[in-house]
Amino acid sequence: MERIRSDTVHEGPRVVVRQERWRHADGSEADREVAVVDDAVVVVAHDDSVVYMVRQPREPVDEVRLLELPAGKLDVPGESPLECAQRELIEEIGQSARNWEELKRFYPAPGFATEEMYLYLASGLAPVEDHQPDPEERIEVVPWPLDRLDEAIAECVDAKSLIGLYLLRDRLAG
Amino acid sequence: MERIRSDTVHEGPRVVVRQERWRHADGSEADREVAVVDDAVVVVAHDDSVVYMVRQPREPVDEVRLLELPAGKLDVPGESPLECAQRELIEEIGQSARNWEELKRFYPAPGFATEEMYLYLASGLAPVEDHQPDPEERIEVVPWPLDRLDEAIAECVDAKSLIGLYLLRDRLAG
Repeated sequence: MERIRSDTVHEGPRVVVRQERWRHADGSEADREVAVVDDAVVVVAHDDSVVYMVRQPREPVDEVRLLELPAGKLDVPGESPLECAQRELIEEIGQSARNWEELKRFYPAPGFATEEMYLYLASGLAPVEDHQPDPEERIEVVPWPLDRLDEAIAECVDAKSLIGLYLLRDRLAG
Repeated sequence: MERIRSDTVHEGPRVVVRQERWRHADGSEADREVAVVDDAVVVVAHDDSVVYMVRQPREPVDEVRLLELPAGKLDVPGESPLECAQRELIEEIGQSARNWEELKRFYPAPGFATEEMYLYLASGLAPVEDHQPDPEERIEVVPWPLDRLDEAIAECVDAKSLIGLYLLRDRLAG
């Protein structure tokens, strides 16, 4: 299939909307409204006893303290997904990691949004000196015990974090 | 926290974008660009041997045959999430189900979109007579063997479907 027309109908600071027309292999055509947003990373950072989660306000869904894995948008020009994940782990958790492994790529909302997420496993953690969290982010760090991982899965209602927690559980069991 | 301003800056057929201002409990304020989209359902429908998946084109992420669980938008006025799930299972798979259970609610993209998803487990399946799939949907039905569930999880890159497959695996193991 191929995109045969794409008109930008909204251009905001984080969300661009395009009205597109696609032609399929059988010659038929379809209109699609597409939200163009930055790709993103999500990090499953753990040591022997905890996985580092966060609670933060998510205004779009009116949740004051949504339980999530640390994550961030790929919005720095030239930065790779891995570099972005390393930066976000420091910014949100105040830790660096020695070992990084990409576990999965997936689409959070392929029905209407372009976003692709890169999910990383990080271990060999060490605190970063002089780390100052950004007060604007309103992020609370939650070190979640690994022996209560199923409780995190039960409480979590954020898609990317659910996927990360399941992948971590598989890895710890494997 | 409370929404203190909300201006519609784009109003499309499926995506509405609002520029919002929120006030947090500490009195500080933040601007947010929010994509308002319909909530949706996703269905994990299985019998003793297979879970019913689909392959369909997803133009926003330029994937011709993305492997997913059947799903659909809550876009019929007055229809409950359960009724929507029952309708979508017939439309996409051509089956009805005797047993329905809500397993989870979650947010696919709470950083920028309002969408909430309702995930149902469906069993006691029976083919619906005279079912005619909508050719516009370009959906291929994929009965996936339960004894190869881990392969579906490995191949799947759609967030809602990954979550559904993990929940099904837990249920079958439990």
